[in-house]
Amino acid sequence: MRPSGRTADQMRPVSLETGVAKHAEGSCLVKFGDTHVLCTASLDEKVPSWLKGQGKGWITAEYGMLPRSTHTRTDREAARGKQSGRTQEIQRLIGRALRSVCDLTLMGERQIRIDCDVLQADGGTRTAAISGSYVALHQCFSLMMTRKLIERNPLQTEIAAVSCGIVGTTPLLDLDYIEDSGAEVDANFVITGKGGLSEIQGTAEGAPFSEEEFLRLLRLARIGTDEIFRLQRQALGV
Amino acid sequence: MRPSGRTADQMRPVSLETGVAKHAEGSCLVKFGDTHVLCTASLDEKVPSWLKGQGKGWITAEYGMLPRSTHTRTDREAARGKQSGRTQEIQRLIGRALRSVCDLTLMGERQIRIDCDVLQADGGTRTAAISGSYVALHQCFSLMMTRKLIERNPLQTEIAAVSCGIVGTTPLLDLDYIEDSGAEVDANFVITGKGGLSEIQGTAEGAPFSEEEFLRLLRLARIGTDEIFRLQRQALGV
Amino acid sequence: MRPSGRTADQMRPVSLETGVAKHAEGSCLVKFGDTHVLCTASLDEKVPSWLKGQGKGWITAEYGMLPRSTHTRTDREAARGKQSGRTQEIQRLIGRALRSVCDLTLMGERQIRIDCDVLQADGGTRTAAISGSYVALHQCFSLMMTRKLIERNPLQTEIAAVSCGIVGTTPLLDLDYIEDSGAEVDANFVITGKGGLSEIQGTAEGAPFSEEEFLRLLRLARIGTDEIFRLQRQALGV
Amino acid sequence: MRPSGRTADQMRPVSLETGVAKHAEGSCLVKFGDTHVLCTASLDEKVPSWLKGQGKGWITAEYGMLPRSTHTRTDREAARGKQSGRTQEIQRLIGRALRSVCDLTLMGERQIRIDCDVLQADGGTRTAAISGSYVALHQCFSLMMTRKLIERNPLQTEIAAVSCGIVGTTPLLDLDYIEDSGAEVDANFVITGKGGLSEIQGTAEGAPFSEEEFLRLLRLARIGTDEIFRLQRQALGV
Amino acid sequence: MRPSGRTADQMRPVSLETGVAKHAEGSCLVKFGDTHVLCTASLDEKVPSWLKGQGKGWITAEYGMLPRSTHTRTDREAARGKQSGRTQEIQRLIGRALRSVCDLTLMGERQIRIDCDVLQADGGTRTAAISGSYVALHQCFSLMMTRKLIERNPLQTEIAAVSCGIVGTTPLLDLDYIEDSGAEVDANFVITGKGGLSEIQGTAEGAPFSEEEFLRLLRLARIGTDEIFRLQRQALGV
Amino acid sequence: MRPSGRTADQMRPVSLETGVAKHAEGSCLVKFGDTHVLCTASLDEKVPSWLKGQGKGWITAEYGMLPRSTHTRTDREAARGKQSGRTQEIQRLIGRALRSVCDLTLMGERQIRIDCDVLQADGGTRTAAISGSYVALHQCFSLMMTRKLIERNPLQTEIAAVSCGIVGTTPLLDLDYIEDSGAEVDANFVITGKGGLSEIQGTAEGAPFSEEEFLRLLRLARIGTDEIFRLQRQALGV
Repeated sequence: MRPSGRTADQMRPVSLETGVAKHAEGSCLVKFGDTHVLCTASLDEKVPSWLKGQGKGWITAEYGMLPRSTHTRTDREAARGKQSGRTQEIQRLIGRALRSVCDLTLMGERQIRIDCDVLQADGGTRTAAISGSYVALHQCFSLMMTRKLIERNPLQTEIAAVSCGIVGTTPLLDLDYIEDSGAEVDANFVITGKGGLSEIQGTAEGAPFSEEEFLRLLRLARIGTDEIFRLQRQALGV
Repeated sequence: MRPSGRTADQMRPVSLETGVAKHAEGSCLVKFGDTHVLCTASLDEKVPSWLKGQGKGWITAEYGMLPRSTHTRTDREAARGKQSGRTQEIQRLIGRALRSVCDLTLMGERQIRIDCDVLQADGGTRTAAISGSYVALHQCFSLMMTRKLIERNPLQTEIAAVSCGIVGTTPLLDLDYIEDSGAEVDANFVITGKGGLSEIQGTAEGAPFSEEEFLRLLRLARIGTDEIFRLQRQALGV
Repeated sequence: MRPSGRTADQMRPVSLETGVAKHAEGSCLVKFGDTHVLCTASLDEKVPSWLKGQGKGWITAEYGMLPRSTHTRTDREAARGKQSGRTQEIQRLIGRALRSVCDLTLMGERQIRIDCDVLQADGGTRTAAISGSYVALHQCFSLMMTRKLIERNPLQTEIAAVSCGIVGTTPLLDLDYIEDSGAEVDANFVITGKGGLSEIQGTAEGAPFSEEEFLRLLRLARIGTDEIFRLQRQALGV
Repeated sequence: MRPSGRTADQMRPVSLETGVAKHAEGSCLVKFGDTHVLCTASLDEKVPSWLKGQGKGWITAEYGMLPRSTHTRTDREAARGKQSGRTQEIQRLIGRALRSVCDLTLMGERQIRIDCDVLQADGGTRTAAISGSYVALHQCFSLMMTRKLIERNPLQTEIAAVSCGIVGTTPLLDLDYIEDSGAEVDANFVITGKGGLSEIQGTAEGAPFSEEEFLRLLRLARIGTDEIFRLQRQALGV
Repeated sequence: MRPSGRTADQMRPVSLETGVAKHAEGSCLVKFGDTHVLCTASLDEKVPSWLKGQGKGWITAEYGMLPRSTHTRTDREAARGKQSGRTQEIQRLIGRALRSVCDLTLMGERQIRIDCDVLQADGGTRTAAISGSYVALHQCFSLMMTRKLIERNPLQTEIAAVSCGIVGTTPLLDLDYIEDSGAEVDANFVITGKGGLSEIQGTAEGAPFSEEEFLRLLRLARIGTDEIFRLQRQALGV
Repeated sequence: MRPSGRTADQMRPVSLETGVAKHAEGSCLVKFGDTHVLCTASLDEKVPSWLKGQGKGWITAEYGMLPRSTHTRTDREAARGKQSGRTQEIQRLIGRALRSVCDLTLMGERQIRIDCDVLQADGGTRTAAISGSYVALHQCFSLMMTRKLIERNPLQTEIAAVSCGIVGTTPLLDLDYIEDSGAEVDANFVITGKGGLSEIQGTAEGAPFSEEEFLRLLRLARIGTDEIFRLQRQALGV
């Protein structure tokens, strides 16, 4: 029995609320249980200088945690004067995930900047961020279609992410903070709406793991991302 | 007639929602119309080193804006590697305001760190932050009393803040972003629940102002802070 | 009786010496008693990029303290790698004050950079800096007129600043360091040569203050700035 | 046919030269073809402060590239004033990999710092770094045994890493730079001497990939790491 | 004929004014013609941590230029967030020079921090800084003797510095800015009151120089430092 | 007798290996005994902005030490976020030395960036770096001639550097780390192939030194640089 009473293949309650940031071109407040991440999409009418003149766009992401989103207060990165390695690793992951389902040539020479800010953290912030960012990005593209900036939505399919892990010897879906702290193996899966793998990461926190164990985690992940895809479509009304 | 349809001495709808951050010792989501600030209070069982051994506590504050809380996206301070002068000015103001109504000798040698993060900005973020921080701080002290860390609440009275300004020639209460952008004079007032002045700041954005004009702004400010005091008491159930 | 033997409404000896920096387009060594600030004006033949093409100029200011200008040595900001919040707050204040009496459209697309460096500190450095910067700026504009860069002096009137405070229960003009350290209320007033208010700031260091107390401080401030205006005119020979 | 003439499951020539840094407690110059990484192990007689008093040790890693190790010169991170996200991601990975095969309780309260500096880069620098660091670390532990600091070597088994990828539709082992630049899928595998998985990472650079494709990459990786294990034992004479 | 009308072996007018910084334990405003440097000595009752417990003291120096001390304005290092290589080179030189004539074991475990701030620059700021710092340091030690902190003055002899150079083919003493800008060879000499060499630096800005040329510069330097020693003794009344 | 068994005027074994960095336009691994420095030359087809349009080129240098090149590990400058004063001093010296023998007008508007990275340190790293950089730079120019970018090699003669010092009372050539640590006087000489002096630096670490002592060091230096010139020509086959 998991601390939350969930079964091994059960997600926490997931919600995706749109229209939560008045000024942003797209926004989504995503909740995986007590993990809450505010995702916004900001349209910029020019691409980074290294991409100029190639007739395509770019999507990039930034990630941050509010200082007291965590159990004990975390120092503010702006006050410390730099972003941690973990922050940079996560924001690079989010950007890659979104670009992997987007046809950048349909965007024109524009950049969309995704901001994922964790309001409350209880494990799985990066996977929630990816899942919510997809919704914010989709809305941004819809707005661009309404404004006749683009003709078609450049997103080719959904993208969602979920963490899985082995606690004791049990593979579990969507770890919360307590489970994550004691996990032997910790893995993140980024999966597309068509079932393709965009990114997989597995780390032995304790003993190394076997191929079979890893495949069981992947199977759990698919259960989770299928549920998220359904909720993404519902949130977007598509 | 103001763009929002308000009268000159009318606040935007103000709300103070408590218990919004699961991990924090105190928290409040304050809204002044479309300006939304999440305030948390984090208890730290030791004081800064320069205060050690003096038998009293300390309250400090940090302030930040989510990148897309603003009309156009603002660069993330953590990514730029430093906090702007404006940010530092505001967080120093919030700290001073809260300390001005708190008997620090009743806290023991502890520090409370206030975090004010702007989720959405539409003018008056610093005054909303002060008004909401008071509620988060009060809750933190209540929890400390429950835990028998302190005997009495060190807060001596309420503290609230509001901005006023002269637009054209008309003095107005609680400017929103559009009004603020075009104001001739911009002022912030931090007032205690007993009517004392904790901090006043007035700046001529265009032509200099007169003593009489400034006193009219102060009168408007008292109307606003009186309303906020009432809502603070209501939110705290005191 | 004040430590210095001054009456409550008496300034410290004020002097404004011009022509103290060989290379600068304008310069003034301002002394408020033992507070000495070297102010220079540097002409730059282009405006910041955000202002280009608008047909007007800009005035900005930087502020610094020599490490041993203070009672005990203060770490050098260049060595620490960043400017403190206090420094940024002060330099923003100086810039706003000077711009408030200057018609920027008469400058052409040029920038003047004011540097205020505290050689010796004994309270009131920011108000001395504003009062001295006015003189340096005026000289810079005079030189520009001599060089036929501009036709008229863009300064519309004088600008001066002074601090006031309540020590014990006594309102005092132009606090020195000892008085400032023990003041209940600390206020800075930036006033134009025509009597208008450019900026006012009042802070309760201890107990909150009343409207009446604040108005008494303002009255003291006008006595101080009137004297400074006279000395500014004398220094500039106008 | 690969540009280098290798077969799909063929590593580049791998060499592990020990004793290359006179001052270090352990060192190894690892070469995967034209990728050359200098790995050193430095013994520190105290642990980081957060680990004090727990009776165990710590292993951490830092990674850097010489500016002209790359095809075109890369700016020096020391000159830019910060380490890139990529650098931080890699050094965290190296540290995790080494700790995953080490019984930290056998080290005593000591820290070993691994430095991996890329002298020449041609793809796969992070996997070479892990494979070479193992040798440097092993030597450091051997020296500690000689000096009677520890009784047994805390390393439980070997650790090695290799990259694999899909170029066109062909899965390939140990990509060099040219192959890596055009790969559809890029994956890194960190595997222990007993066959366990310590870390796996797979990223779709172009189209998403399938589970089957990923398993074929894993199979190739095991061919590579088996060869590296053999060379590691040979280099260490165990 | 030199631009200033000086002969080849003639110093600019040198002055050393003491007691110029109210708060400092020692101070000296040194002028080499239009080069003006304010030097202060600050006593710190503890040594840097790496020197603790060795029963001796330390002297260190910092150097800075006011932004408009130079012909055109130089960016403020505090605003740029780091000290230039030139600044660091100079402050290391000043510290070495002063330590070379001081018996650090007579200081007790104390540190003296020298600050050299250039108020106006016209060539030779580093040599003026060394020459003036000696006076500030001497005064600091005198004060420490008065306060019975030390018994004897730890300074063993004077220390002074001067720049020389070859302009065209003519060796010149004490270059001003114009001469320095066009010099073929630029050299700095730090010499003790007993005639010993503490530091010599010679750099070919254009064509390399010969041993003979270098020795002629050294001879000029001795003329200059002899004059400075005389003025130092006069300023200190010893 | 020196610790290494060398005579007073004997260099350590010097070697200059070329072609050691596959990607660089020129490269040299220079060894002065156990001091090993990897020098690369990188051609950049544009000059720094301040030199544009003047029809000449530029040579600049950067210097770094691998963390465990030293006896005990030195913190990585990239991790600390800034280069030390020593590093900046050295890289400025290397750049000046190379430019002093190069006719920059023969380069066209191009920049060559020299990187000197210390793989192993045992005293004299900066002098080895200069001596090796000359070889890397020469190769870069040869390649540019082969590619018809320039017609003649802009280098006018060789440049080499060596350190000398007084240990006890004995002047010694080419100090190694142990000798350097205990030297009374430490000097660096940068000399051209035609015998001219490009840069000389002498520092009293203990007692000041005399002119005669300095001249004896210079004589030793010429013995060392003559040997290096011979080896440079041999390495370059000229």
